[in-house]
Amino acid sequence: MKIAIYGYGNLGRGVECAIRQNADMELVGVFTRRDPVTLDTVYGAKVYSVEDIYGFKDEVDVLIICGGSATDLPEMTPRLARDFNVVDSFDTHARIPEHFAAVDESAAKSGHIALISCGWDPGMFSINRVYASAILPEGAENTFWGRGVSQGHSDAIRRIEGVVDARQYTVPIDTALELVRSGKAQKLSAGEKHTRECYVVAAEGADKARIEREIKSMPNYFADYETTVTFISLEELKRDHAEIPHGGQVIRTGVTGKDGVHSHTIEYSLKLDSNPEFTASALVAFARAAYRMRQRGVTGCKTVLDVAPADMSALSPEELRATML
Amino acid sequence: MKIAIYGYGNLGRGVECAIRQNADMELVGVFTRRDPVTLDTVYGAKVYSVEDIYGFKDEVDVLIICGGSATDLPEMTPRLARDFNVVDSFDTHARIPEHFAAVDESAAKSGHIALISCGWDPGMFSINRVYASAILPEGAENTFWGRGVSQGHSDAIRRIEGVVDARQYTVPIDTALELVRSGKAQKLSAGEKHTRECYVVAAEGADKARIEREIKSMPNYFADYETTVTFISLEELKRDHAEIPHGGQVIRTGVTGKDGVHSHTIEYSLKLDSNPEFTASALVAFARAAYRMRQRGVTGCKTVLDVAPADMSALSPEELRATML
Repeated sequence: MKIAIYGYGNLGRGVECAIRQNADMELVGVFTRRDPVTLDTVYGAKVYSVEDIYGFKDEVDVLIICGGSATDLPEMTPRLARDFNVVDSFDTHARIPEHFAAVDESAAKSGHIALISCGWDPGMFSINRVYASAILPEGAENTFWGRGVSQGHSDAIRRIEGVVDARQYTVPIDTALELVRSGKAQKLSAGEKHTRECYVVAAEGADKARIEREIKSMPNYFADYETTVTFISLEELKRDHAEIPHGGQVIRTGVTGKDGVHSHTIEYSLKLDSNPEFTASALVAFARAAYRMRQRGVTGCKTVLDVAPADMSALSPEELRATML
Repeated sequence: MKIAIYGYGNLGRGVECAIRQNADMELVGVFTRRDPVTLDTVYGAKVYSVEDIYGFKDEVDVLIICGGSATDLPEMTPRLARDFNVVDSFDTHARIPEHFAAVDESAAKSGHIALISCGWDPGMFSINRVYASAILPEGAENTFWGRGVSQGHSDAIRRIEGVVDARQYTVPIDTALELVRSGKAQKLSAGEKHTRECYVVAAEGADKARIEREIKSMPNYFADYETTVTFISLEELKRDHAEIPHGGQVIRTGVTGKDGVHSHTIEYSLKLDSNPEFTASALVAFARAAYRMRQRGVTGCKTVLDVAPADMSALSPEELRATML
């Protein structure tokens, strides 16, 4: 199947790499908003301007949209679904119903398939929440994130006056993890499950005490969490915090049998060296599913919850039954 | 949807309990090979003889077949799929292609849907193997089982002369688990990943040394494992080993990015107080999916790999997108 990449940041670079790991896929090219001549791709993919994409309608089976969820995807995915089968990793949980409606209208009308929110949360974590709650309807569920870099929280710190750069790690609290795994906890709040570690580069002469106070009192982002702030140099930030690791756990505990006498724990866990590259790898596997579903006549907006696992795999149904089942 | 249970051992009892946890399901009755009058059900379900099942063709949406994989299911599932939509938990991995073919012929011809191998391994573990290998195609995968009771290994010990009863626990080796999680191991053998603990009740005057020797040298079952044998009394067996816990992990590690520089670990883990009750709960969730898929016109034999997560859930697509995605 022929894949194209729309948008070329960390995510797009990850998709370029992931496509090389899948022998049944071919990369048509990268479409960028920057000047194509200035763009160096990881493995030398062909580069075009985003404006040229409409000349590739007949050459692209699935277009993987690698934009941001804040402003890019709400505009890009509905627009591009008019002419392409598309996959995105839209991850603003609260706005998914709205995004779904906009994309569905466009994809259903044009007869394309659009698979949205194909990352790990939303994405693989969502899938595991659904499986686990379907099997253990009487139970409690908790998601932990980290240890990993939260881009949104790092950005929030950077907007404070006197901050040159910052990196924020979300860190799960071990005792909360153990409590949840034991089945003794109901739904915990995010602040009961996580601490926040902030590494901050302050401008010369900036008031560090004020910066720390502003971070720790920031509503929604930090106020409800145990937060630590460590000031470091720009060199230290570049040396020790260049990577973008992440991960987490979806844990559901539940009871079965007469009077609920037996307890069970289902846990899905990710430990990722690179958040964008793992998301990219998920996008590529979901692009295969989108291609197969479209071949069977499926159109409109779908989510990861509508995808059967077999459609994600390069193996045939016979091979899957013989080797994976 | 109206569900019936065919076969009433530990699994059937678990299904009876699980149906009560799902408000969208109704239990039509239990069909048993024993004399219905002698059968006490957990919650007082109606009991019929297996011979009466064909009088319920129009009253049962999905029939959950709760038989054993050795001799029951290879005969029951193809036969019952001629008149019912069916779900089973066939778990003899090596014979799945054969079982699939027999069930498919019968279900496709009669226009029913048959979902096979709907437990946890095969079942949820299979699903997770497929997702993880699709997302991280360049990697290694290992499954660990336990700590839990292996019915097959317990039975093998019971067949030795002089053994009154026995319970065998499969126990994962912690150092192997850590090695696999670190991404430093390729595919390990079952013996490299597990030890086997045997609790044996010997007949009075039996030669315990010979029994221990026969266990430890049994090919396939014990010869390739570090095995311990502990002789206990029948009272101790009944007191300390009455439960049927199990569980395990599917772990895939893989690399992404330029030259595979970043590593990732995906782990799906189950910790189950009751193996048959968890399998029963999975069967019930897959029965919901079978019902929905049949409503959409799907017929023939399918496996858990063909089921989209959304079809397992009692929630509507809108609710799932708003609360689970």
